[in-house]
Order: sequence, then structure tokens, then C-alpha cells
Amino acid sequence: MSEFAVTPKPPYYAVIFASTMTGDDGDGYGQMADRMVALAQEQDGYLGVDSAREDIGITVSYWRDEVAIKAWKQQVDHVEAREQGRAKWYGSYSLRIAKVERAYTWEV
Amino acid sequence: MSEFAVTPKPPYYAVIFASTMTGDDGDGYGQMADRMVALAQEQDGYLGVDSAREDIGITVSYWRDEVAIKAWKQQVDHVEAREQGRAKWYGSYSLRIAKVERAYTWEV
Repeated sequence: MSEFAVTPKPPYYAVIFASTMTGDDGDGYGQMADRMVALAQEQDGYLGVDSAREDIGITVSYWRDEVAIKAWKQQVDHVEAREQGRAKWYGSYSLRIAKVERAYTWEV
Repeated sequence: MSEFAVTPKPPYYAVIFASTMTGDDGDGYGQMADRMVALAQEQDGYLGVDSAREDIGITVSYWRDEVAIKAWKQQVDHVEAREQGRAKWYGSYSLRIAKVERAYTWEV
């Protein structure tokens, strides 16, 4: 099950981020995205992340509580990355904050 | 913003489904996945879906309430598809039920 985020028992929080890109993934986007994942992992209350990109990108990050999400939202490098994202890479995005109430896993 | 699920104001529910495949996507998986999306759209309380597959697949479907999610879980063709999925296609999956409390969108 290590391909996925391994999270504790609910309740905890999910940040569901869906995005489209304006053009290709070049111009430093991949590096920035990797740096943000590494930075998120250092935050207090970070629980994990699942991510995939096809026609749209979906990144779901998991957090202990809303305090942790707010701290991550205000983290300085993350604020700067977000501004760059809007200026250079993203065509559009949607962001949802959701409280995970139940969770299941299954494997062969 | 039509690339994404367009959902009403929160609160509503998200079903966050992450999966790995045992092999390639062949053997009818794509057709089955498309059929399940079409079927979900007919369900009472269905609000939308966002989906992407890369190393893992992530599908987030949105629902009016837990009653709608439960009805979809028990829908006969969906039950059968799930059983086929476990028998033939999925290596592992995680499923989370979460209450969306806040949502934002942004576009250029």
C-alpha cells in the first residue's frame, strides 16, 4: 500500500486540488512541485499526499486538522510558489477543504 | 472552468478514490470506467467528478449527501463493477469519504 498516502484513522482533513496548466510542464514547474511536496512533508500536521496528472492534475494532501492546513497555506515559500503558479503555470484550479470521516483500503 | 467538476456551495461530500492497477489498462477496464461515470451521472445527488491517472489513479466524485453516496455504493451494476475491479484490474485502492466544508476556484 506504499504507493498511496498512508494516513491515520479519521477524522483528519483533505485538501483536494485540481488544476489545468496553461501550456507544457516546462519552465520549472516540475521542480517547484517537487519542492513544495518536500516542504509540505516538513510541516507539522502533514499526513500524506496522493497526486496524478492526465488532462487535469489532481493532488490530494492530508492534514491532521485545519490549523495545520492554515499554517501550510501561510508558509512563506508556499505563498510564493502559489503566486508563481498563478502567474506562470496554472490555467485554472479548484481547491476544496474536506473533513475525512471514513476511510478504507484494499489490496490484492 | 468546465474542465473540472462544477459543484454547488459547500457543504457536500467527496469520495476520494486512489488506485493502482495490476497490469495494463486493457481487458475492458476503460470501457467499464466510462460506463460507471455515465451511470454515476444518472444517480440522484450526483454533483460531479474529477479524475486523472499517472502512476496511480485518483478519482474524486462529489455527492449531495451521505444518502446519495450510500445509494451509489449499493447500485447493482456498480457493485458488480467493483467486484470485477478487485478481481481483474486493481492492485490496491484507498477510499475516503469526506465532507467538503470550503471550496474555491481560480482561473486566468
